[in-house]
Amino acid sequence: MRVVVPFDATEPKTRLAPRLDAAERRAFAERMLADVVRAVDASATETEIRVLATADVDPPGDAPAAIDVDDRPLSTVVTDAVDATVGDGDGGEHEALAVVMADLALATPAALDRLFGTPGDVVLAPGLGVGTNALVVRTPGFGADFHGASFLDHRRAAADVGTVETVDSFRLSVDVDEPADLVEAYVHGGDRTRAWLDARFDLAVDGDEGRVSLHRR
Amino acid sequence: MRVVVPFDATEPKTRLAPRLDAAERRAFAERMLADVVRAVDASATETEIRVLATADVDPPGDAPAAIDVDDRPLSTVVTDAVDATVGDGDGGEHEALAVVMADLALATPAALDRLFGTPGDVVLAPGLGVGTNALVVRTPGFGADFHGASFLDHRRAAADVGTVETVDSFRLSVDVDEPADLVEAYVHGGDRTRAWLDARFDLAVDGDEGRVSLHRR
Repeated sequence: MRVVVPFDATEPKTRLAPRLDAAERRAFAERMLADVVRAVDASATETEIRVLATADVDPPGDAPAAIDVDDRPLSTVVTDAVDATVGDGDGGEHEALAVVMADLALATPAALDRLFGTPGDVVLAPGLGVGTNALVVRTPGFGADFHGASFLDHRRAAADVGTVETVDSFRLSVDVDEPADLVEAYVHGGDRTRAWLDARFDLAVDGDEGRVSLHRR
Repeated sequence: MRVVVPFDATEPKTRLAPRLDAAERRAFAERMLADVVRAVDASATETEIRVLATADVDPPGDAPAAIDVDDRPLSTVVTDAVDATVGDGDGGEHEALAVVMADLALATPAALDRLFGTPGDVVLAPGLGVGTNALVVRTPGFGADFHGASFLDHRRAAADVGTVETVDSFRLSVDVDEPADLVEAYVHGGDRTRAWLDARFDLAVDGDEGRVSLHRR
C-alpha cells in the first residue's frame, strides 16, 4: 500500500505557540513525523512511504521514507495523490492509497494495521474536532477537503464514489496541534515524541477537578 | 459479564455550565446514560447492567438496567463493586466486572465488545486527558482511583495485581464533560444524545483555522 504523510515543513504547529517557540515547534513536529513514519514502517502491512512536505526537510530519522516537496494546499496534494495512485476514473492505476497525518504522534503499528486492513472503498479515521486524521482510498474519483468539518465532508464525498467505513481508534483520533493535545502525546506518544516532551515538561494534576496538564521544567 | 455504569445524579456535568443550564445538564446527562446503557445492552456480550447512581434516578429509557443508589465517592463505589463481583482475594466470587462511564455518548456495541473481549486481568480504555473511561477487571485486589491522571494510576494498580491491556477506541476515549466535547457528541454520539443536541445547536465552522463548534439555534 502506498502511504503518503503530508508534512508542513514551512511553519509547522503554529497553534502550539502558547507552549512552544518556533524552533521548538519545528523540532517537535519533526519528532512526531519520525514516529509516524516509523509506526507505518513497523506495521504488518507492506507499505511504500512518501512524505509530502511543503518544503525541503531532512529524512525522518532512520525511517525509510521518500521525500516529495510540494507546496500546494493539503487538499490539492492529497486529491492529486489519490488520482495518481488509485486512478481518476479514466482507467488509470488502482493501487490503494493511505494518507496518514504527520502529527499522529500516538499512532502505533497495530492501530495503522487496523486502518489499512479495514475493507471499504474509502476508510476514514475520525479526528477530534470533526477532522479526518487518516484515510485509505481504494476507488477513483475521491476528492479530499481537509478544511473545517472534514470528517463529514469526506464521509459525503466517499459515499458519492463507493462504500465508506470508519476505524475506531483513539490513537488515530488525536492529532497534536493544540496545547491540550500535548498531554496525550506525553503519555501515549511514540518514543521520539515522548522523549522530546519528557526532557522539557512534567505532568501535573491541577486543582480539585484533577485536570492533567504539562508544566515546563 | 456484570457491567456497572456510575452516574452522578446529584449535580451532573457541572463543567458544561458555560453551554448548558442546570436543567439542561441533567436532561442531557440522562440522554447520554440511556445511550450508554442501550449500547451495552446491544453488545454481543451477555451483560447484567447496574447503574450506580449517587441519588435516585429514573430508569434510563427502555434500557434494561437495575438502579443502585450509592452516594459514596466514585473510586470507593467502583472498588467495592470489584471486590463484590471479582472477589477481594479472599476466595470470593470471580466473575468479571466492567465499568463504563455514563458520559461515553459515543460508545457503540462494537466498541464495547472490543473492550469486553480484550483478554487481560485488567483492561483499560484510556480517556482524553489521561483519564480512564471504561475498564474490565478479572482479577481480585484492584483498587480504583479516578482522580487526576487515572489512566497512569490504574495502569500501575493493574500491574500490581496481574496483566494489563488497553483497548484503542476513539468512541470510548471521549467522555463528554467539557464544552469542547459537545461537538464530538453532536457528530458521533448515540441516537438520544444526538437528537437532544440537534434540537438545540447547529454545527458551525469558525474562522480561517476551520475549527468546528456548536452554536445555539
